[in-house]
Amino acid sequence: MPIPLGRSTFAMNRPPSVLASAAVGGKKEGEDPMAQWFDEIHNDTTFGEKTWEKAESRFQQRACQLALKKAKIAPEQVKLLLAGDLLNQCISSSYGVKELMIPFFGLYGACSTMTEALALASLLGDNGVIDPILAVTSSHFCSAERQFRYPLEYGGQRPPTAQWTATASGAALVGKSSKPPYLKAVTIGTIQDLGVHDINNMGAAMAPAAAATLLTYFADTGTQPHQYDGIFTGDLGQVGSKLFYQLLAQQQVNVTSIHQDCGCLIFDAKTQDVHAGGSGCGCAASMGCGYLMRQLEMGKLHHVLFLATGALMSTVSCQQGCSIPCISHLVYLSTDPTPVFQGG
Amino acid sequence: MPIPLGRSTFAMNRPPSVLASAAVGGKKEGEDPMAQWFDEIHNDTTFGEKTWEKAESRFQQRACQLALKKAKIAPEQVKLLLAGDLLNQCISSSYGVKELMIPFFGLYGACSTMTEALALASLLGDNGVIDPILAVTSSHFCSAERQFRYPLEYGGQRPPTAQWTATASGAALVGKSSKPPYLKAVTIGTIQDLGVHDINNMGAAMAPAAAATLLTYFADTGTQPHQYDGIFTGDLGQVGSKLFYQLLAQQQVNVTSIHQDCGCLIFDAKTQDVHAGGSGCGCAASMGCGYLMRQLEMGKLHHVLFLATGALMSTVSCQQGCSIPCISHLVYLSTDPTPVFQGG
Repeated sequence: MPIPLGRSTFAMNRPPSVLASAAVGGKKEGEDPMAQWFDEIHNDTTFGEKTWEKAESRFQQRACQLALKKAKIAPEQVKLLLAGDLLNQCISSSYGVKELMIPFFGLYGACSTMTEALALASLLGDNGVIDPILAVTSSHFCSAERQFRYPLEYGGQRPPTAQWTATASGAALVGKSSKPPYLKAVTIGTIQDLGVHDINNMGAAMAPAAAATLLTYFADTGTQPHQYDGIFTGDLGQVGSKLFYQLLAQQQVNVTSIHQDCGCLIFDAKTQDVHAGGSGCGCAASMGCGYLMRQLEMGKLHHVLFLATGALMSTVSCQQGCSIPCISHLVYLSTDPTPVFQGG
Repeated sequence: MPIPLGRSTFAMNRPPSVLASAAVGGKKEGEDPMAQWFDEIHNDTTFGEKTWEKAESRFQQRACQLALKKAKIAPEQVKLLLAGDLLNQCISSSYGVKELMIPFFGLYGACSTMTEALALASLLGDNGVIDPILAVTSSHFCSAERQFRYPLEYGGQRPPTAQWTATASGAALVGKSSKPPYLKAVTIGTIQDLGVHDINNMGAAMAPAAAATLLTYFADTGTQPHQYDGIFTGDLGQVGSKLFYQLLAQQQVNVTSIHQDCGCLIFDAKTQDVHAGGSGCGCAASMGCGYLMRQLEMGKLHHVLFLATGALMSTVSCQQGCSIPCISHLVYLSTDPTPVFQGG
C-alpha cells in the first residue's frame, strides 16, 4: 500500500508501471516540432464525424485503442478506466469510451486531468488489485472554442497571453510490470486561487497551483530539483512558465535547467501563431503519453516529475465575476526501481 | 487492501466507516416527507448569494462543514476531498470547497457522484493510508434548470416523466473507526446506453445502469436480495423504478420489498407536484447522507446497497441526436463487521 510522506504526497510501495501509452493529434499538432512523437496524426480533425464534439470523442477512443494495442491487452481485460475532459458534462469521455465497456470513474480536473488520472491509477494500482487501469483525456480546439469562447466563424481576436487548445488525446495503461517507467510517487493538488480573473491568461491563473504542488512534493520527499532530470508542467505556456519560476524563486527553488512545459513544447511559438502556447487536457495528455513517455522508454530521461495544471472555472463563473481556481496534481515517473527518496 | 470478487466488485479488507455525514436542503426539500432527516433547511435557496450557482456552492460548503463538525475533525486534518456536480466544469464543487484547502480530486459522475465518491473513498481508504476522506456533491433546482432546460421565467411545461432537481447537498466523511456504518464492498459501474433519447425521461435512461450494476454485484458476491434489508437507488424516480424492476425480473431477481429510490423518497408525489420524482446529484447525496445514514446509525437497517445513478449526456450531445449513456456505482453499507458474503 502507498506510504504517506506528507498530507498529500504518497510513495508507492510496489510502484505500478506505465505498460503502454499513446498520443493522437490533429493537423496543427502533427506539424513540427512534435509530429514524430504522436502515434497517429489526423489531418482531418473532424475524424469523419459531423460535429467537433463527436470528433473529440473519437480522438479519445483512438488513443485508448492504440495504448491497448501496444500493450497487447483487450478492453475486457482492463479493470478500470479513468477519464475526463473539458466539455460540459465531460461528454468527450463518456461518448468516447462507452463502447469499450470498461468499469469507469469519470473525473473532472480540467487540464490537470491526465495527472489526476495517473495519480489515482498509482494509488489504486499500488497493491495490484485493480490492474491494469487505463487513464485518458482529450481536448479539441474547435469544441473548446465553441464552448468557452466564440464560434469559429466569428474570428475573435486573441490577446498575446491566450493559449491555443490542442486537438489531441493521450492514454496510458497502468499496471504491474518489471518494465519501466514506474509511477513512484504522487502529490495530490489543493485548489489555489490567487484572484486571477483574466480567462485569456490561464498561465497566470495556473502557475500558483503548479508551484504549490511542486513545493509540497519537494518538502514532503525531502528532495531537491537537481535529483531529477525532468520537470514537466502542463499547460502554463510562456506566460505561466515565467510566473512559475518567479513563485519558485521566492522559495529559493530553481528548476529552469530541467523544466519543460507541455504548452510550450507542443507548438512552435515562432511559426504556429499560438500566442502563449498550447493548452487543453489533450496538450499535457499527448505530450505526457507521447514525447515524455518515449524519452523515459529510450532512457533519455530517468527521474521525471509530471504535473499537469487545470483551471476550474466555467464561462458562467467568469461571467459572474469569480476568479479562477486552479489545481495541479503531480506524478513522479522513473526508469529506476530505486526512488531518489527514502521510504518507497 | 481490497479483495477482488469480480472484475469490478471489491470487498474491503479493513472496511472504513462513515465517521459522520450531513444533508442540507432547500425550501421544497424541507417540507414533508423528508424534512426531519436534513441537518439544515435553507428556506432562502439563494443562500444570500446573488446567483444560483454561487448558492449551490454554499450548499456544498455547508454540507462539508456540518459533516466535519459532527466528526469533530478540522478541514486541515482531512487527507482528501472527492467532489463533483452537474454544473458545467463542476463549478459548484470547485468554488464550494476551495476555501477548505483540502487535497482535492474532482469527479464527474452526474447524479451517480455520491456513490462514485463513496466507492473511491472505500478503495482508497481501505488500507488506512488516506484517512479521513470527505465525499460531497450537490444540485440546485434553479442552476440546473437554467443550464439544462429553460430560464425559470419562461415557465416551461414538464411532461409526466420529468423529474425535479433537488436543491440539496450531502457530505460524508470516511475513515477508520470501530463504529458503524462500514463501507464493506463496492461495484464500479460500466457505462450503459440502451438508446434512450428523451431528456425528459431520465429514469428510463438510467434504469439499465442501476440494474446492470446491481446484477453484477449479486453475481460477484454470490448473494441474493433477501440477505439485505435495503436497496437504495437514486434517482430513478417512479418511471425508472418500474423499469428497474422489469429489467431485474428478466433475470429472476426481485427487490421490490426492500427497494427505495431516493428520487421517490425526497418529495411527496401527491402534494409536491414533482411529476416522476426528484433528481440531481443532491438528491441521492442528501437522502444517502441524511435519511439512509440515520437509519443505519439507529439500527433500523443493517445491510444496505446504495447505488446512485447518473445520466452522462449534456445539452449539446442531446442537440446532436446522441442517446443518453448512464452509469451507476454501488456501495454496500453495513452495521455489522461481518459481511453477508465470504471474503471480506
